Amino acid sequence: MSRIDGRLPNQLRPIIIQQDFTKRAAGSVLISAGETVVLCTASVSDELPRCMPKDSTSGWITAEYRMLPGSTSPRSQRADKPDGRATEIQRLIGRSLRAVVDMEKLGAKTVNIDCDVLQADGGTRTLSITGSYIALRTAINKIFPAPKTSPLNDSVAAISVGILNGIPILDLCYEEDSKAEVDMNIVMTGSGKFVEIQGTGEKSTFTQYELNQMLTLAREGIEKLLNDNSLA
Amino acid sequence: MSRIDGRLPNQLRPIIIQQDFTKRAAGSVLISAGETVVLCTASVSDELPRCMPKDSTSGWITAEYRMLPGSTSPRSQRADKPDGRATEIQRLIGRSLRAVVDMEKLGAKTVNIDCDVLQADGGTRTLSITGSYIALRTAINKIFPAPKTSPLNDSVAAISVGILNGIPILDLCYEEDSKAEVDMNIVMTGSGKFVEIQGTGEKSTFTQYELNQMLTLAREGIEKLLNDNSLA
Amino acid sequence: MSRIDGRLPNQLRPIIIQQDFTKRAAGSVLISAGETVVLCTASVSDELPRCMPKDSTSGWITAEYRMLPGSTSPRSQRADKPDGRATEIQRLIGRSLRAVVDMEKLGAKTVNIDCDVLQADGGTRTLSITGSYIALRTAINKIFPAPKTSPLNDSVAAISVGILNGIPILDLCYEEDSKAEVDMNIVMTGSGKFVEIQGTGEKSTFTQYELNQMLTLAREGIEKLLNDNSLA
Amino acid sequence: MSRIDGRLPNQLRPIIIQQDFTKRAAGSVLISAGETVVLCTASVSDELPRCMPKDSTSGWITAEYRMLPGSTSPRSQRADKPDGRATEIQRLIGRSLRAVVDMEKLGAKTVNIDCDVLQADGGTRTLSITGSYIALRTAINKIFPAPKTSPLNDSVAAISVGILNGIPILDLCYEEDSKAEVDMNIVMTGSGKFVEIQGTGEKSTFTQYELNQMLTLAREGIEKLLNDNSLA
Amino acid sequence: MSRIDGRLPNQLRPIIIQQDFTKRAAGSVLISAGETVVLCTASVSDELPRCMPKDSTSGWITAEYRMLPGSTSPRSQRADKPDGRATEIQRLIGRSLRAVVDMEKLGAKTVNIDCDVLQADGGTRTLSITGSYIALRTAINKIFPAPKTSPLNDSVAAISVGILNGIPILDLCYEEDSKAEVDMNIVMTGSGKFVEIQGTGEKSTFTQYELNQMLTLAREGIEKLLNDNSLA
Amino acid sequence: MSRIDGRLPNQLRPIIIQQDFTKRAAGSVLISAGETVVLCTASVSDELPRCMPKDSTSGWITAEYRMLPGSTSPRSQRADKPDGRATEIQRLIGRSLRAVVDMEKLGAKTVNIDCDVLQADGGTRTLSITGSYIALRTAINKIFPAPKTSPLNDSVAAISVGILNGIPILDLCYEEDSKAEVDMNIVMTGSGKFVEIQGTGEKSTFTQYELNQMLTLAREGIEKLLNDNSLA
Repeated sequence: MSRIDGRLPNQLRPIIIQQDFTKRAAGSVLISAGETVVLCTASVSDELPRCMPKDSTSGWITAEYRMLPGSTSPRSQRADKPDGRATEIQRLIGRSLRAVVDMEKLGAKTVNIDCDVLQADGGTRTLSITGSYIALRTAINKIFPAPKTSPLNDSVAAISVGILNGIPILDLCYEEDSKAEVDMNIVMTGSGKFVEIQGTGEKSTFTQYELNQMLTLAREGIEKLLNDNSLA
Repeated sequence: MSRIDGRLPNQLRPIIIQQDFTKRAAGSVLISAGETVVLCTASVSDELPRCMPKDSTSGWITAEYRMLPGSTSPRSQRADKPDGRATEIQRLIGRSLRAVVDMEKLGAKTVNIDCDVLQADGGTRTLSITGSYIALRTAINKIFPAPKTSPLNDSVAAISVGILNGIPILDLCYEEDSKAEVDMNIVMTGSGKFVEIQGTGEKSTFTQYELNQMLTLAREGIEKLLNDNSLA
Repeated sequence: MSRIDGRLPNQLRPIIIQQDFTKRAAGSVLISAGETVVLCTASVSDELPRCMPKDSTSGWITAEYRMLPGSTSPRSQRADKPDGRATEIQRLIGRSLRAVVDMEKLGAKTVNIDCDVLQADGGTRTLSITGSYIALRTAINKIFPAPKTSPLNDSVAAISVGILNGIPILDLCYEEDSKAEVDMNIVMTGSGKFVEIQGTGEKSTFTQYELNQMLTLAREGIEKLLNDNSLA
Repeated sequence: MSRIDGRLPNQLRPIIIQQDFTKRAAGSVLISAGETVVLCTASVSDELPRCMPKDSTSGWITAEYRMLPGSTSPRSQRADKPDGRATEIQRLIGRSLRAVVDMEKLGAKTVNIDCDVLQADGGTRTLSITGSYIALRTAINKIFPAPKTSPLNDSVAAISVGILNGIPILDLCYEEDSKAEVDMNIVMTGSGKFVEIQGTGEKSTFTQYELNQMLTLAREGIEKLLNDNSLA
Repeated sequence: MSRIDGRLPNQLRPIIIQQDFTKRAAGSVLISAGETVVLCTASVSDELPRCMPKDSTSGWITAEYRMLPGSTSPRSQRADKPDGRATEIQRLIGRSLRAVVDMEKLGAKTVNIDCDVLQADGGTRTLSITGSYIALRTAINKIFPAPKTSPLNDSVAAISVGILNGIPILDLCYEEDSKAEVDMNIVMTGSGKFVEIQGTGEKSTFTQYELNQMLTLAREGIEKLLNDNSLA
Repeated sequence: MSRIDGRLPNQLRPIIIQQDFTKRAAGSVLISAGETVVLCTASVSDELPRCMPKDSTSGWITAEYRMLPGSTSPRSQRADKPDGRATEIQRLIGRSLRAVVDMEKLGAKTVNIDCDVLQADGGTRTLSITGSYIALRTAINKIFPAPKTSPLNDSVAAISVGILNGIPILDLCYEEDSKAEVDMNIVMTGSGKFVEIQGTGEKSTFTQYELNQMLTLAREGIEKLLNDNSLA
């Protein structure tokens, strides 16, 4: 069975990464996977978020995610505040990046990640994680040029998997995603450990066997993603 | 190794279910697991949410989740709007219940689930799912007294698992949850299929082996929860 | 003439008080009058509200009031912010409690009262005052075990009165309240002094004679309420 | 004992009423009592509020109340939304006016009352009621020139009373109001019936005897207010 | 060609200025131009806006603008927050006044200007600027009685011009404004310099020649406005 | 005198225009002037804004403008709602585009323009107008391929001018803009007519002579901008 866009079940969409796409933020990446395009920036400041103690010696990484109105057809309304979906996604991005950074070594700094989707075709949340990691790495490398002092512990990337017409597939485009029985997002480190697993079967529940198939697909996809793009 | 409250790693907290706790909603359950107490109500109406077509012949189930200010010590501020965490939770509750209901058979009705946490001690989201299912079942049985016409396909319940000090444990209380390296919430049907898997390793990543251990614990816990309380 | 539920004009609905219903707040009471059920908690903190000077040696008592969505049939929408009615009620609760507490003796503490209506059948505001007083008394007795130092000056309770079909009645249920020509809420101390009088004749104005009748009914009702429940 | 501004305990402040102060609204009154100045307008429209049935044959009167920032010294912040106090006041104004209007005779119309305090010196809510009544009467007389068809049943006015240093006084200015032990607002019709009684003893509770003294003062004050200004 | 109200193309509407209309603010002016009536107050405080450094030795002037609901027919909805139009106008008022005040000489003070339109008939923004200048001058003269120390550098006033049926006209009333092809607001100092020029041709673009004609009209109008009212 | 970046007083920054930068919106342009980069999209829908009559046969063009958080250094906070400045700008963009479109010929359609600033270095509002015009033209040409039926009447572009150290200059970068005595934005059509003139002299007022110099600079700049990029 061939997929909508001719890919094999375990095939990623082509990835294009433009580093330093803009100049104001310490890290800035325009990343695309097929027709999904996200601008990820990493801005560093010496102000800590209010929820942290003022004399903290460790830092924090937080993320915001939005879809620009023109990223979809028909146009989506500009979100004044993050809606339920965006809230979930930006919390996921933040947790994923914090999993590979040593906050003590980062010191009393905040890194603000901004993911703005310029064009949407499925997988915006996982691509935002991968792109944000690259922007974050660029920003951290500027501040901590000596590898010894770098707070980065590992690399991280994310991919979606799902079950469509009973067949597990990797890296779903929008059309596949909207028809899939099961949808799962996996965040994994370069060393092969899980950071997050989020699987949902709203249209259909799934068995332990199907879960195992999807996890295998995701693991191979993330390894390829990190290796082919020299991210690991 | 014994747990904070003396339980075994695979032991659930005691469950108490008070059905018909209040009278206005079609279904109303006060459910407690140890010191966590949630009031779950299911209200049925003939108005469909705005996002559905007006002439729809199928229905919808939606959920709201809040913690009452006095449910924690110190008191938590009353949330004017659901914050990021509550947004995630109420979306999870909604998806979990919709997974076991045939919306066509439900017909053009909305079921509003309200989960208000009266006392919090860990596991409020999973207890809300289990309690909401019972309230929903009560409401549906009132409307569809004949089993044949009932839109309920299956039962559903949820439980948390995690890894604390390297050991996988079931049904974490607050103190365990705040120290756990990995935290996972599993929603499963009475027929043993997954509805949702949400695992996060913010303090620590986790391996495939640890994932398998946690899934096994969760499966046994949910089976026991459903069987001991005649929910399956 | 007999009332909707068979009571005499000057008869209270049966009161049930469950103290320490939850454990997190210093005081917690589930109180019901007939079919109206309110959970009242009193949480104490050492932070003063912003509007008070930082070096204040006296404290403050403030209240929030909400109806849970499932407390009515049909379900009421969850209020993101207190609406006009809730704003009036929570201000009334706060003033009523402050009238019997010596703020200097309370010291630099804030007591947050939370009244969440679990089931509504008229008289939710007056029952909230009575229940809050009990929760407050429990909380204060924990902090000030010696009666001499206690900031509590008096007891306080509240009741509604009204005129229905020309006849003054005590403690209106919802159906009576919605038909009454005049509606009045009286807050009174155990020593028989008024704290608040709020009378409104939207459907009909009322005479001095009718006012006197209602005040007499209310006085007797509050005395009975305080004495029968050992609150005075 | 003489009062701050030399008045007798039962003496009103001088009232000035400028009718038709502005021209756009059907009724417009600039009313002052001593140094308190309020602009009251009554605008009539054929649109009913959303909460009323579309085919209603009766109307509605609703009110908004705000203090302009420059009405106090120091300047008060411009209120984006009505705060708790303004919410209470505008609901009181609406109820007071509706008490003297026959909504069936008004027909399917909405009267919007706007009370904007230009200068504040105590008694803004009671002066707003009196001023709004005059603006409303003007508007109604324009629409219903024949007395027989007029929906106005009665006149209405309001005044404050209180207890200061143990002495009951009428029509408190700001300085008196801020020191009073008991504060009460009375709304009464030209025919001598109560519309609203709101008495609060936050600083001190009050006895039945004191209540009677205040009600007597208020009755005389409102009669004088209505008669001297030809409002009854 | 004669205008709607009989004026010549270069003729201003009659101006009435009531100084010290209210007493709480340091400066208070009720100003009218034909049927447009605005209350302008200038309140002075020693608190600086948050955006300024705490140890600043210079001050700031900021403005708020609203139309009261009863100022138009039909009534306009009360604006909870300034809408787009009000935001533009209040920013314009603030810039216009700051252009004639030496902030260093003003010292660490904030002047809050409040413009509340009581009756609207075109030209509310330009009349607000002129009225605010008078209120500001009154307030500054109270604080800086010696002319040498006064932070006021110049006088300022504003007027509208436009093109209606191809003819340039001065000081448009509402009916003219709603039909004009081009609408322009000019703010000018007593010494004849421009502070702001805002011209818009939504219905029609305009040529350099038409621009020059409008600027000439505006210059003459503002000179007359300042001189006839002894404002320069 | 040479400018900060070596340009002559009347010299534009280099312009780069990438058409069809994204694919979802009917028109999409990434436009940069020096270091200012804006993504402009034009989305067309058949729904009219609520403020227009439902049976309207003419359309509308509306615009939204935001700066992405990473477009500045330090990062700017993500704006939940358009602030005062963004409100002004997006209203200006909308008016500028509507000036060159025949709404009757457009028919009952809404064009939503979205301008998202990816990198900011002065002149974001004028570049947004120019970029939006190009995106709009692309969108309109798709819908109206026959020139005869096209609702586009003219081309439009915008540029900033100002006075810095007494010298009029064209197309200010951020550093120039923040120091300029006078700042002016000019919107002009391809046929040389003004659409908008907005000049402000917050730091300094300006004379008629200076105004004329700035208008001449702007006219030459816009002509060059339109001709060099084949936009006229």
